[in-house]
Amino acid sequence: MHVVVNAATSADGKLSSRRREQIAISGEADFERVDRLRADSDAVVVGAGTVLADDPHLTVKDADLRDQRVEDGEAANPVRVVVDSKARTPVDAEILDDAAETYVCVSEAAPVDRRMDLANRGAELVTAGDDRVDLLRAFAALQEAGLERLMVEGGGELIFSLFEDGLVDELRVFVGPKVIGGRDAPTLADGEGFVEDFPTLELESVERLDDGVLLTWQAGGR
Amino acid sequence: MHVVVNAATSADGKLSSRRREQIAISGEADFERVDRLRADSDAVVVGAGTVLADDPHLTVKDADLRDQRVEDGEAANPVRVVVDSKARTPVDAEILDDAAETYVCVSEAAPVDRRMDLANRGAELVTAGDDRVDLLRAFAALQEAGLERLMVEGGGELIFSLFEDGLVDELRVFVGPKVIGGRDAPTLADGEGFVEDFPTLELESVERLDDGVLLTWQAGGR
Repeated sequence: MHVVVNAATSADGKLSSRRREQIAISGEADFERVDRLRADSDAVVVGAGTVLADDPHLTVKDADLRDQRVEDGEAANPVRVVVDSKARTPVDAEILDDAAETYVCVSEAAPVDRRMDLANRGAELVTAGDDRVDLLRAFAALQEAGLERLMVEGGGELIFSLFEDGLVDELRVFVGPKVIGGRDAPTLADGEGFVEDFPTLELESVERLDDGVLLTWQAGGR
Repeated sequence: MHVVVNAATSADGKLSSRRREQIAISGEADFERVDRLRADSDAVVVGAGTVLADDPHLTVKDADLRDQRVEDGEAANPVRVVVDSKARTPVDAEILDDAAETYVCVSEAAPVDRRMDLANRGAELVTAGDDRVDLLRAFAALQEAGLERLMVEGGGELIFSLFEDGLVDELRVFVGPKVIGGRDAPTLADGEGFVEDFPTLELESVERLDDGVLLTWQAGGR
């Protein structure tokens, strides 16, 4: 399995404002890059907070890229995965429409009626962990389902947990020409934070893109 | 007046861990770059939180750079400035030693005995603002004192306030190969955060340095 975390941040490392409103950080070139990365992935993964804040569709936008996938014997869109410990994904979320298969990873703490609602909407449920999703087990289940190339699109809580569990292989960050600020604004890696044994990265490439820069880091675990 | 904000962040935009412990983010090349930037500045500015957390000395480390300043008719070290609304800078702070002149910018809300302690330690007091330092007025006072080239070394609260007041001309960020994480860890720009009218930057240069990358942004105000 290969896990790529992809995100766009402001020059000060924020994913959005403290109101969790999406802010246009990147431009057309980065948009196309992200679309290609989605098309090259078996699954696109987000946390429940991102679903609740942004209601993303997480499909491939370019019809040619979708056609290419179908030609290659794949579904038009990669599988969508929500990491959702308490099964808070709304049943009318875009991510649950029929444009692609959707997995929802829940913990044992997710209310049974919420799980049933999601299953009724066609979601594949993966249950792993007591109070929070056990990411190692959940990702092992995804791998068993044939999902090898995973792209993680946020948010900062999920990204931190993935680094905590050593599950990140690559981090691609578009850093854009804005300052968002805010001690309560979501950042690329939130969660509790490390205080020692900080994950170390290796800078693979630096590429100017739109009005910002794309940094590609290889993750070597902790 | 020309204000350069200089900082080193982790790949996820953090200045330090949630414990506010300093973490080695950059390396020797960046250290030398920062020392040269200090030597080229009339004053080095930090917020009181940075003084309390790190007790920095803020002097030029390289003796040749100090000698060059003296040859040029300047003091060996640039002036040190603390933005310290409540006059919390400890009297035994490194920044108050006699290696350089030190200005402490306080608000009217700073206790008089604390101000007297600081003045007795030789600090030049600049009083501007009721509850918080009025940065526009304080910086105007610094300019009147002949300080034209200012380098700001943090922390995130001060940096945000400077962007809020449109006082930043240039932002230099060394982005290093570590993940710190933490929703409570200090970031490059904290404060309340913007929710609209985000300051827009222009990416002037991108330079690989040590194991990370130095991003130089020109700030165009809000």
